[in-house]
Amino acid sequence: MPRRTVAEVGEFGWLSRLLHNRRKGRGTVVGPGQDCAVIRCGTRNCLFTVDTLVEGVHFRSRWMAPRQIGRRSFLVNASDVAAMGGRPRFCVVSLEVPGRYPADDLWALQAGIVAAARRYDADVVGGNLSRSHTLSVCIALLADAPTRVVTRGGARAGDHVYVTGTLGDAALGLRMLRTRGANRSAWAVRRFREPTPRLRAGRFLVESGIVSAMIDISDGLAQDLGHVCTESGVGAVIHAERLPRSAAYRALLGARHPLALHGGEDYELLCTVAERHVERLERNREKLGCRITRVGVITADRGIRLVDAAGNAVTLPVAGYDHFR
Amino acid sequence: MPRRTVAEVGEFGWLSRLLHNRRKGRGTVVGPGQDCAVIRCGTRNCLFTVDTLVEGVHFRSRWMAPRQIGRRSFLVNASDVAAMGGRPRFCVVSLEVPGRYPADDLWALQAGIVAAARRYDADVVGGNLSRSHTLSVCIALLADAPTRVVTRGGARAGDHVYVTGTLGDAALGLRMLRTRGANRSAWAVRRFREPTPRLRAGRFLVESGIVSAMIDISDGLAQDLGHVCTESGVGAVIHAERLPRSAAYRALLGARHPLALHGGEDYELLCTVAERHVERLERNREKLGCRITRVGVITADRGIRLVDAAGNAVTLPVAGYDHFR
Repeated sequence: MPRRTVAEVGEFGWLSRLLHNRRKGRGTVVGPGQDCAVIRCGTRNCLFTVDTLVEGVHFRSRWMAPRQIGRRSFLVNASDVAAMGGRPRFCVVSLEVPGRYPADDLWALQAGIVAAARRYDADVVGGNLSRSHTLSVCIALLADAPTRVVTRGGARAGDHVYVTGTLGDAALGLRMLRTRGANRSAWAVRRFREPTPRLRAGRFLVESGIVSAMIDISDGLAQDLGHVCTESGVGAVIHAERLPRSAAYRALLGARHPLALHGGEDYELLCTVAERHVERLERNREKLGCRITRVGVITADRGIRLVDAAGNAVTLPVAGYDHFR
Repeated sequence: MPRRTVAEVGEFGWLSRLLHNRRKGRGTVVGPGQDCAVIRCGTRNCLFTVDTLVEGVHFRSRWMAPRQIGRRSFLVNASDVAAMGGRPRFCVVSLEVPGRYPADDLWALQAGIVAAARRYDADVVGGNLSRSHTLSVCIALLADAPTRVVTRGGARAGDHVYVTGTLGDAALGLRMLRTRGANRSAWAVRRFREPTPRLRAGRFLVESGIVSAMIDISDGLAQDLGHVCTESGVGAVIHAERLPRSAAYRALLGARHPLALHGGEDYELLCTVAERHVERLERNREKLGCRITRVGVITADRGIRLVDAAGNAVTLPVAGYDHFR
C-alpha cells in the first residue's frame, strides 16, 4: 500500500492527531485545539499561541511590502488572543529567509513586526533567523488571560450567533491581488494586508460573561462556525442576508454574494450569546470598538444550515480552506 | 548601488538590528540577545525562547528518522533554557511541511517532539501546520526562571572558564553523516542527533550563585565564548589541550584535533566562575549530572587566545558558523 502524503491526509486531521498524542500536564488549563492554549504561570493564567505565514501559501511578496508582511504576521497572532479575550504581552519571532532576500527588506519586515507589537502594547523579546528556500515568519505570542476561559466548545442550543465587523472583504482583497485586476477596492486590499485584531471586543465579550463560545474567523465563517459546532456538539442556522458586508463588498459583488460566508482571512470574531445576555450585549455595543451583527442561532441538530430571508434553505457553498488540499 | 542580500550581511548583524529596533517594555526583564528572554508573568519570572530547525540547513532527512528530528527540535530549545538555569514548562510548535511529505513521517516527527517534551516535564500546548517547500520545525518554549538572572554579560577578568560534557562529538557525528563514511562512531552520531540539554547542571550553576555568565555551545566553543566576551567586555585565554574530548573523538581524531574548539551542535554549557566560587563548584560536581572541565580564564584584554600546555600561543582556527555565509 503506498504511503499517504500530508496533502492526502489534510491539515486538520494532523493537528488533531498531535492533540490526541498528548497528556494534559500540570499547569495546562486548556491544551491544543483552541485559538490559544491557557496555561498557569505562577498565580495567574496566560494565553500561548503560535502562527506562521509562509510565502506562496499565505501571501506572496508581490502582494505586499515587507513591512506589511511583518505587521500582518503579528496581527494574525493577536487575533487568536482576541478570540480568547486576552491582552498580548510578549512574543518571540522565528524568520526563515532565502539567502538572496534583500537585507533592507528583511529589516523592514522585522520593523513591521516590532511596530505592530508595540501598537498593541506587546514586546518582541527574542528572535531567530534561519536560511531557507522559502520566506516564512513564525511568531509565538504570550498574553495575559482574562479571568474567564471561553473556548470554541461552550455554544448551547438557542444561543445567538454574532460576528464582529464585516465579512468577505479580505477574501475579496486577496482575489484582487491574485488577479491583479485594475478594479481594486483599496479597502478590501487593506483588509487583507492589515487585519484588525478585535482585542478590545474580545476582552469585553469574555470578561463581561456575555459570550458562551468564541473563535476568530480565519478560514471563513462557514468553516470556523463548523469548528465551534463540532467542539460544542451542536449545529447552527445562519441567515444568509444578515451577514455583514461592507459598502465596498456590496458595490463590487452585490449584497448576496457568498464570499462573506466562506472567504477567509477576515480575522473578525464569531461568538455565541445566550438569550439572557443578548440585551446586555446590545446595551454595551459601544464598548466593543467595532460593529457586531447577529447572524443566526445555535441548534441542537448538528450541521450548519443556511436560510434566506423567507427562512428557506440555501445551498451551502463548499466549506473552508485547507491549504494542504 | 546594488542592494545587499541577507547572505551578504550575515546572520548576527541582522539579529542585532532587530534588537536595536526595540524598546524594553513593562515586564521585560531581559530582552533579545540572550539564550532566552526573561519576562515577568504575574509575580514570577519566566524564560521565553524560540528555535527552528530547517531541512537542508540544520539537518537532512536522510541523516535521521522523523522521530529524531522532532526530538532534536525540542532538545535544542531546552538547551537554551538550560543556559539560563530554567525549567521547561510549555511549548508551542509550528511545522512547515511539503505536501508530498509522508503522513506517517509527520506523525512520527510530532510524536518525537511530544515525547522529548514529556521527558523534560514540559507540555506541548499548541500547534500549527503549514504547507511549505521546505520542512522546518519551529518550537517556542516557555520555562520557569530561576531566582537569579545569569546572562552572557556577567564574565569578569580572572573568572575561570568551564564547559560541561565533551566537545566536538556532534560536529564529528555530523561530518560522518555528511560523508556517509563507513568508519562511524555511533556515539558521535548520536551526540549530533540527540543532544543532551544540561538542565540539571544549568539550574544548579545558576541557583547556587556559582556562575557569573553562561551560554550553551551551539555554534562551537570559540564562537560562543566570543559572544560571552563581547557581551561582558572581556577576553579569554583557552588551554587547547584541556578541552574535554570523548574517547570516541580521541580515537578517531586524536587528542589535539581542533574540532573540539570550533565544531558546533554540542549543546554543552560554557560558564564563567569567579575564583572565590571555584572550590564550591569542585565540591558540588556530583550535583551537575555531567562532567565539567576548567578550560581557561577570562582576561581584561579583549580577544580570545589559544595556548598550548607550555603556554605558547596556538593559532586560532577560523571561528564559528554562520549559516548565511
